[in-house]
Amino acid sequence: MNSRILFVKRPSGWVDPSCFALEECPEPVIGPQDVLVQALYLSTDPYLRGRMNEGPSYAPGFALNKPIVSRVVGRVIASQNAKFAVGDHVWGFLDWAQRVAVPRGEGLQRIDASLGRVSLAVSALGMPGLTAWVGAIELGMPAPGDTVYISSAAGAVGQLAGQFAKRAGARVVGSAGSDDKVAYVLDKCGFDAAFNYKTTDIDEALSQHCPKGIDVYFDNVGGATLEAALRHANIAARFPVCGMISAYNEVGDRGIRGLQAVLSKRITMTGFIIYDHVHKLPAYLARVAPWFRSGEMVFHEDIVQGIENAPAALIGMMQGEAIGKRLVQVAPE
Amino acid sequence: MNSRILFVKRPSGWVDPSCFALEECPEPVIGPQDVLVQALYLSTDPYLRGRMNEGPSYAPGFALNKPIVSRVVGRVIASQNAKFAVGDHVWGFLDWAQRVAVPRGEGLQRIDASLGRVSLAVSALGMPGLTAWVGAIELGMPAPGDTVYISSAAGAVGQLAGQFAKRAGARVVGSAGSDDKVAYVLDKCGFDAAFNYKTTDIDEALSQHCPKGIDVYFDNVGGATLEAALRHANIAARFPVCGMISAYNEVGDRGIRGLQAVLSKRITMTGFIIYDHVHKLPAYLARVAPWFRSGEMVFHEDIVQGIENAPAALIGMMQGEAIGKRLVQVAPE
Repeated sequence: MNSRILFVKRPSGWVDPSCFALEECPEPVIGPQDVLVQALYLSTDPYLRGRMNEGPSYAPGFALNKPIVSRVVGRVIASQNAKFAVGDHVWGFLDWAQRVAVPRGEGLQRIDASLGRVSLAVSALGMPGLTAWVGAIELGMPAPGDTVYISSAAGAVGQLAGQFAKRAGARVVGSAGSDDKVAYVLDKCGFDAAFNYKTTDIDEALSQHCPKGIDVYFDNVGGATLEAALRHANIAARFPVCGMISAYNEVGDRGIRGLQAVLSKRITMTGFIIYDHVHKLPAYLARVAPWFRSGEMVFHEDIVQGIENAPAALIGMMQGEAIGKRLVQVAPE
Repeated sequence: MNSRILFVKRPSGWVDPSCFALEECPEPVIGPQDVLVQALYLSTDPYLRGRMNEGPSYAPGFALNKPIVSRVVGRVIASQNAKFAVGDHVWGFLDWAQRVAVPRGEGLQRIDASLGRVSLAVSALGMPGLTAWVGAIELGMPAPGDTVYISSAAGAVGQLAGQFAKRAGARVVGSAGSDDKVAYVLDKCGFDAAFNYKTTDIDEALSQHCPKGIDVYFDNVGGATLEAALRHANIAARFPVCGMISAYNEVGDRGIRGLQAVLSKRITMTGFIIYDHVHKLPAYLARVAPWFRSGEMVFHEDIVQGIENAPAALIGMMQGEAIGKRLVQVAPE
């Protein structure tokens, strides 16, 4: 029997389990040109919170009583489409279900399993990795001697952004919400310094760890962290804005104070969304996949087993409990 | 007898006359290499408010019981310096006084009177003009069909920014704080639309005048106007930040709400300060001076007579009563 996760209630503020329902559903049937995919990994991502709101975000909102949709890595188990063969690994924006029929195979991307483990197609060797690259390198433009500060440093994007900036010669400082995450980015990802923002005064931490100020702030969170980064920024600092997760779960908007620093310090703040950069993915993969294969770069996946645990896994990720990319494994590879 | 304007009290919030004192002072005496300048025009500029604060702004703070300093256009009336002859027109950051000795002529710039009237050296043919150019053209990058929205549209910078954007083929919309200013930018500066932000709902006005949204917001004011521009911005909009005058006179900082639009709309917000761009001035003058001489571009100066009226002229400018560049004329040309 197939099963899937429905979105049944719009959250106000934090997401809770009552927003979701696990439902048994019929096995999908495919027709001409269609592809049947066995889900292996469901991707949990911060941007999904925005899709749960009524109003438009940069991605369309989820419909009530329909399945949650996100990037899913799967294996083709039946195909009437010449482009996909049984056994192919693929990813696409698919319903959260064990098995899904993909009409005409539309939107499915084949995964080149020679690049690395297939689950990385929705993280380091996919859009989150390209997100880290565009923000840290293309917009951040770190030079040797620069200080790069990254919030959500242990997250899927943050840990990669830090490693890319480090390779570019910068001093890399991260913040995260637990001592385990801090230890991870220091010990495994090679950050020069990191601190737990829940147990440290952020201004003191930035004074200590960024004694020459901040040249690049890779913003994943907005809010008070962005305000602190504005206070510690150097002249001509770059602020790639990748996420403002602290605002996603807030009801109301308390505003960002100290934005005058954008003027007085000639800061460039640039919001970016990876959909605008997908054409860069092949070049990105060619460049970075060898770094992961060689072990020069690392990437941590936090894998929760079983589709029935997907809502809790997503909620927990939004509450900051995951190190790296949180995936829900639906079936063995 | 010489006289000058002293800065005698730091303002909290709005500047008032008690912050200044008119003082008689000795005629300056010059020694070897020095230059004696008769002030003709004192420039009043929004950024002077920041210099009245205790803390550092992007320009050093004014010392108490010392003269106010700003750009001053003058005429050399005595010189022991081979670089400057009696009768030369010059500008420099000088004390607000009728006559000033400039040690070794340091910081004085000769004005090429063939480019236009000499007073323009501190406005359209000087830093405010270059400010408008860098913000509207270099950072705004307006293309034909784009909509460019400019706050403080009748100000020294705003009116030029609008005309530059118009020349680049954009639809140009301005806001200002009086019906006279609105009429000025519409009738004299060729703006496509303009509104009085004091008597109009800004969201309604932007919906009406920017029906295709905002591609470039030239920010002179910050605050609620910036928040509205974020709401009406298009994808990939550019926000050159030239000033946040609404914050300069506020005690406290209520924060900017809706900054998440930077992310969702992929906005690039860039603070800039003209001191970083002074090397561009010769090329700017060569390019734009002919446009003013031919009358293709216009520039309005609001000239107040007499050094004794300089404090009131400055306060009034900060309160928005001037159209274009407010100058204080100290002596006839």
